Amino acid sequence: MREVAVIGTGMVHFGELWEKSLRTIWAEAAVAALEDAGVDTVDHITVGCMSSGLFVGQEHLASLLADELGMAGVSAVRLESACASGGLAIRAGFAEIAAGLADVVLVTGVEKMTDVDGADATYALGTAADHEWEGFHGITFPGLYAMLARVHMSRFGTTRNQLAAVAVKNHANGLNNPNAQYRMKVTLEDVLNATLVADPLGLLDCSPITDGAAALVLASAETARRLKPGHPVVRITGSGMATDTITLANRPDLAELRAVRLAGERAYAMAGRKPSDLHVVEVHDCFSIAEIMATEALGLFPPGQGGPAVEKGLTAIGGPIPVNTSGGLKSKGHPVGATGVAQAVEIVSQLRGEAGERQVKGARVGLAQNMGGSGGSSTVHILEVE
Amino acid sequence: MREVAVIGTGMVHFGELWEKSLRTIWAEAAVAALEDAGVDTVDHITVGCMSSGLFVGQEHLASLLADELGMAGVSAVRLESACASGGLAIRAGFAEIAAGLADVVLVTGVEKMTDVDGADATYALGTAADHEWEGFHGITFPGLYAMLARVHMSRFGTTRNQLAAVAVKNHANGLNNPNAQYRMKVTLEDVLNATLVADPLGLLDCSPITDGAAALVLASAETARRLKPGHPVVRITGSGMATDTITLANRPDLAELRAVRLAGERAYAMAGRKPSDLHVVEVHDCFSIAEIMATEALGLFPPGQGGPAVEKGLTAIGGPIPVNTSGGLKSKGHPVGATGVAQAVEIVSQLRGEAGERQVKGARVGLAQNMGGSGGSSTVHILEVE
Repeated sequence: MREVAVIGTGMVHFGELWEKSLRTIWAEAAVAALEDAGVDTVDHITVGCMSSGLFVGQEHLASLLADELGMAGVSAVRLESACASGGLAIRAGFAEIAAGLADVVLVTGVEKMTDVDGADATYALGTAADHEWEGFHGITFPGLYAMLARVHMSRFGTTRNQLAAVAVKNHANGLNNPNAQYRMKVTLEDVLNATLVADPLGLLDCSPITDGAAALVLASAETARRLKPGHPVVRITGSGMATDTITLANRPDLAELRAVRLAGERAYAMAGRKPSDLHVVEVHDCFSIAEIMATEALGLFPPGQGGPAVEKGLTAIGGPIPVNTSGGLKSKGHPVGATGVAQAVEIVSQLRGEAGERQVKGARVGLAQNMGGSGGSSTVHILEVE
Repeated sequence: MREVAVIGTGMVHFGELWEKSLRTIWAEAAVAALEDAGVDTVDHITVGCMSSGLFVGQEHLASLLADELGMAGVSAVRLESACASGGLAIRAGFAEIAAGLADVVLVTGVEKMTDVDGADATYALGTAADHEWEGFHGITFPGLYAMLARVHMSRFGTTRNQLAAVAVKNHANGLNNPNAQYRMKVTLEDVLNATLVADPLGLLDCSPITDGAAALVLASAETARRLKPGHPVVRITGSGMATDTITLANRPDLAELRAVRLAGERAYAMAGRKPSDLHVVEVHDCFSIAEIMATEALGLFPPGQGGPAVEKGLTAIGGPIPVNTSGGLKSKGHPVGATGVAQAVEIVSQLRGEAGERQVKGARVGLAQNMGGSGGSSTVHILEVE
C-alpha cells in the first residue's frame, strides 16, 4: 500500500451564501486547494455531498463539478454517508492513491443548504435518519441527539453545564477562524438561556444550517516530496470507517457511539498510534452532546469523562488535548457534505503550523472524526507531519 | 496493486416491485451474492444508488443497508454518478481490495423507482442532467438522447431501422433471461409503430422505469483461489472511469460519447486488452441510440458503423461480438443505481458458462460499460476467466 500525503488545502468562508451556487462555492474551494498544491491537473476527483438532490435538485454531481473546473474527462465520483460524506471522500481518494490507481487526487466536500426553506432543509437532513422507523414518526435530529444526551446524563451524570461548555469553547476557538460562520463569543449563560430546541439541547447546543465547500489535494508521498521539496510532508497514516444502525431503536447501547469507536480503532491500528499520541483533534460536534460522546469513543477520555473534561478545559487550546480548534461545526458551520473535508483542512493547517491565533504549539499528530446521522456512520483519519 | 476477483453474484427479478421496499430488494440481492460466494462476513460494502433521497426519502443509505443485512459496524459507502452509480460501486470495491484496505467486499447497486408517481420519477431522473442549463428549461432524457440520435443520423446516415434493430435484438436476448422485466419478443414493426416519445425515439427505443438490485462479492485473487478451490476464477483485469460535460451544450462533438471512449481506453490499458480480444459485452442501452454510440466509443466498430453492425446481426448472440446478451437495459429493465452491477452479473455468468439459453460459447473475456446521464460519466470494467 502506497503512502499518501496532503499537498494542498482550500475552503470557502462558511455561511449563508445566497449569492453563489453549489458549483461556484465548490470550484472556489477546489481552485484554492490546487493553487496551494501548485498543481493544475489531477488524476481523479472525489466529492462528498449528502443530498444535492433534495437541496438543489442536482445529482450526477461529480461530473458536473469536474466540468465546472474545466476538467471534464477526468474520473470523478461522489460519495454519500449523510454528514460523514466528506470523510468518505477523503477515504476514497486515499484508496485510489494507496492502490496505485491515481497519483494526484482532488478530494472535496460540498453542501448548499440555504436554497430551500427551513422545513425542506429539515426534511432533507431528516433523510439521514431511518425514514421508515424514525422520520415517518416525525422525529428530527435535535430530538434524536436530545435522547442520546438524556441517556448520557442518566448513565454518567453528565450535566447541562458540561454540554454548554462545549459550545462556549468552540465559539471561543471559532473567533480566531476567519472562515467560521458564527464568529462570536458565547458565555455559559448565553447557552443556558438560549431557546430550547429539544430538551436538554438549546439553540446554542446545535450546529447551524450552512453553505460551504472544502478541498484537499492528495498525492502519493513520493510525488509530494518531488512537488514540494523542502516542505514538511503531511501524511495520512490512518483511515478508518465504520457503520452502526442508523435507527437508535436498533442499538444495544445508546451511551456509546459505536461507529466512532470502531472507526477510531481501525484508524489507530493502521497508523500504529494510540489516543495519547495525538496533539490536536477535530470531532463532529453537530450537537454539544456529540462532541462529548465522540471524545469518549475515540479513547481521549474514559466513558462518562468527556463532560468533566471539557468543563475542566482539558480540550481547550492550551489544554492537554485541544479539540475543535477550528470552532467545530458549532461555530465554523456545518455544510454537511463539506464538514469532513473541512476538519482535515484544519488538522493540516495545525500540522503545518499555519493556524495563527488558534495554533496548537508543536502539533505533529492530529485526528479528524466525521459522523453521519445520529452516529450511523463515522470516518476517522490520522494525519502526521514528518 | 493486488489482483481482484469476483467470487459471487446475485440479483433480484427486475420489475415493478410495489410490495417490497428498497432495503428488502437490496438485501435479497446481497444475500444471493453472499450465498453464491460462500461467505457470511465481508470487510466492506459499496452501494451504487442514484437518488434514494428523491425516490424514497432516504439518504445515509450504506449504513441503513449494512444494518438490514445484520452487518452494522462494517465499513460501508454509497457512490453516485447518476445511472453510472453501479459501475462506481464496482470500482470503489476494486480499489479497496487493490489497495489492501479490504480482502472481501460486497459490491451492490439498487434503485427503487416506482414508489413515486411518473412525474416525480421523471424529475428525479432529470437531476442527472444539468439542472441550471438543461432541466430548468424543461428537457428530460428522451429529448436529450433524441438530439444525440439526430446528430448521429445526420453525421453518419444512421437509420431509424438501425435504432429499432437494437430493441429487437435486446428483447430477443431478454426472452432467455429469467430476471428480465420485459420478457417479450418485439418485431421491427412493433418498434417503428410504437408511440413516439421524442422524435426519432419511440416507446420501444426507451428503457423502462424499474425497481431492482444486484450484487457482487469481490475478493483478492488469492482469497478467491483459497475460498473456491477448483473453480475458475473470474478476475477484474481493467477498471476505467471518465467524465464528460453533463450538459450537451458544452460538448465539442455530439456524435461521440467521449466519457465512454476515455473509460474504455483506461480499462483496456489496465487490462492489456483491445476490443478484438472481447467475447461478450454489456453496454448501457438506456435508449437504442446509446447502444450504437457506446459500441463505437468502445472501439467495437468504427464511428458510424454501430448502426449497420446491429442491423447486420454482428452483435447478436452467435455473431462475432454479442452485445447485451442479458437483454440490456431495454428488456432486463433499468433500476438506475443497480444497472452497472447487474451488467457485471451478466458478464460473470457468461464467463462461468452459466448463462443458459443465452450463453456465448467459449466466452473468456468480457466487458461491462455503464453510463450516467447523457454520457456525462462512464465506467468500463473488463473481466476475464482463467
